[in-house]
Amino acid sequence: MAVRRTITGFSNPTVKFLRSLREKKHRRREGKFLAEGLRLLTDARESGVLPEMLVMASGRASHPLLAELEDAVAAAGGEIVEMDEDILAKVTGKDNPQAVAGVFAEFDTRLTGVDRNAASIWLVAQALRDPGNLGTMLRTGDAVGAGGLILIDDCADPFSVEAVRASMGAIFTQRLAAARWDEFLPWLRSGPGQLVAASLREPTDYRSAAYKAPCFLLVGNESQGLPDTYEAECDLRVTIPMMGRADSLNAAVAGAVLAYEALARLGSSTTEESSYSAA
Amino acid sequence: MAVRRTITGFSNPTVKFLRSLREKKHRRREGKFLAEGLRLLTDARESGVLPEMLVMASGRASHPLLAELEDAVAAAGGEIVEMDEDILAKVTGKDNPQAVAGVFAEFDTRLTGVDRNAASIWLVAQALRDPGNLGTMLRTGDAVGAGGLILIDDCADPFSVEAVRASMGAIFTQRLAAARWDEFLPWLRSGPGQLVAASLREPTDYRSAAYKAPCFLLVGNESQGLPDTYEAECDLRVTIPMMGRADSLNAAVAGAVLAYEALARLGSSTTEESSYSAA
Repeated sequence: MAVRRTITGFSNPTVKFLRSLREKKHRRREGKFLAEGLRLLTDARESGVLPEMLVMASGRASHPLLAELEDAVAAAGGEIVEMDEDILAKVTGKDNPQAVAGVFAEFDTRLTGVDRNAASIWLVAQALRDPGNLGTMLRTGDAVGAGGLILIDDCADPFSVEAVRASMGAIFTQRLAAARWDEFLPWLRSGPGQLVAASLREPTDYRSAAYKAPCFLLVGNESQGLPDTYEAECDLRVTIPMMGRADSLNAAVAGAVLAYEALARLGSSTTEESSYSAA
Repeated sequence: MAVRRTITGFSNPTVKFLRSLREKKHRRREGKFLAEGLRLLTDARESGVLPEMLVMASGRASHPLLAELEDAVAAAGGEIVEMDEDILAKVTGKDNPQAVAGVFAEFDTRLTGVDRNAASIWLVAQALRDPGNLGTMLRTGDAVGAGGLILIDDCADPFSVEAVRASMGAIFTQRLAAARWDEFLPWLRSGPGQLVAASLREPTDYRSAAYKAPCFLLVGNESQGLPDTYEAECDLRVTIPMMGRADSLNAAVAGAVLAYEALARLGSSTTEESSYSAA
């Protein structure tokens, strides 16, 4: 049975709880995260993920997708909360808040949950600091049919509002894992998997490299790139040509250029044939 | 002869002027923009562009690149201004400001300044709203050896601090132009040039398309994509495969995937041979 409530005051504990989810330490403590906007919440629902709490502005315009969402959350026994637009603005930290937000349980990000054979391509990011880049990599992973994104060492929080927004719903479809390098490497070596580094030093062109599924494409930190010792552990180090004066690409762009090359060679699924002829 | 000054008060007119450059209307009125950080300013200097005014924190650590920059600005007759770190923080709007910032004259962004034969690849963005995406496209343009970025219709301001930062110095190396569609199209048709749309509808795969230099790669708005009428005017409409549930990529990512494909086919220069064999 769904719980329905209307909140009228800024000091309501639910408002405080929702606002606290803008900070990583509170997300971690609660094991919850916030996603905003009808599009994102509809993406979640269509991916089979419902918010535990649905928060709506009282004066919202009616919308068939919002009605469907509300019904689904109610049927699943979730909590449905209405509040004035100005209170919702406090929650989302925006002057013009989206008319709806949802509280989701954080996903299990242990490596043990990753089925490496579920896809040909996996994206791996090391010390990725920008939540927009992180979300964009999730979105790219969805687009190339990757299995998910594995975050190595200290990365931006994938459950931050910025990362969730930039993922454009891919946070709900891509498998997400987080591990230290010294946990990741033994896990990778415990089964099939080619580890490919996006390198700034290696002369092997990314278009002439021999990719093998399941292929783990590893991109390093925005300003440092990958540590030498990490590159040395990879099966393949490939470089993306730089014709200008800069020596690197945006990390999410580098990941996407590699991922689309791998997709062209391998296809997105470990069982299906590629829709591309081999280069 | 260089002008050297030390500013000690928050209410100094130069501080007000510098702060005003964080807003587009003031940048436009002054015809100036702000770039922050030693790396960015060094990129500018190495690209032959010097700030009209160099702003430094009084208590900064000495650095050989900073000394070179200071000498170059002084030799060019630029203004050199020192201020306390807390005043510089006001200018940059950051608690931990970079120890140096520069004021540059905005570049001429008329199409008439674009020499289409100077490069094989040109990036074109229509109604691109995110300054980070805009800067990332400039950076990608530099990496693929593109001639520059042409902004169509209402785009984010390329001279905003965010766009300049995301360009990682490419704002100083890539040609930048801005035009309405109905100015751009006649200009394009007045000479050689293949206009290629990143389409969400067209079945032609971006890897099997026949690119021709000078190739203008057109990417649309982050949420709307390209208007149908614009796509219809293009010589080629190509699509990037989407294997997941989402129907689009981040705009800067889509531009990069296309740009690297075009680079592989065409090479970066209209005169040099490509370093890739044709696919």
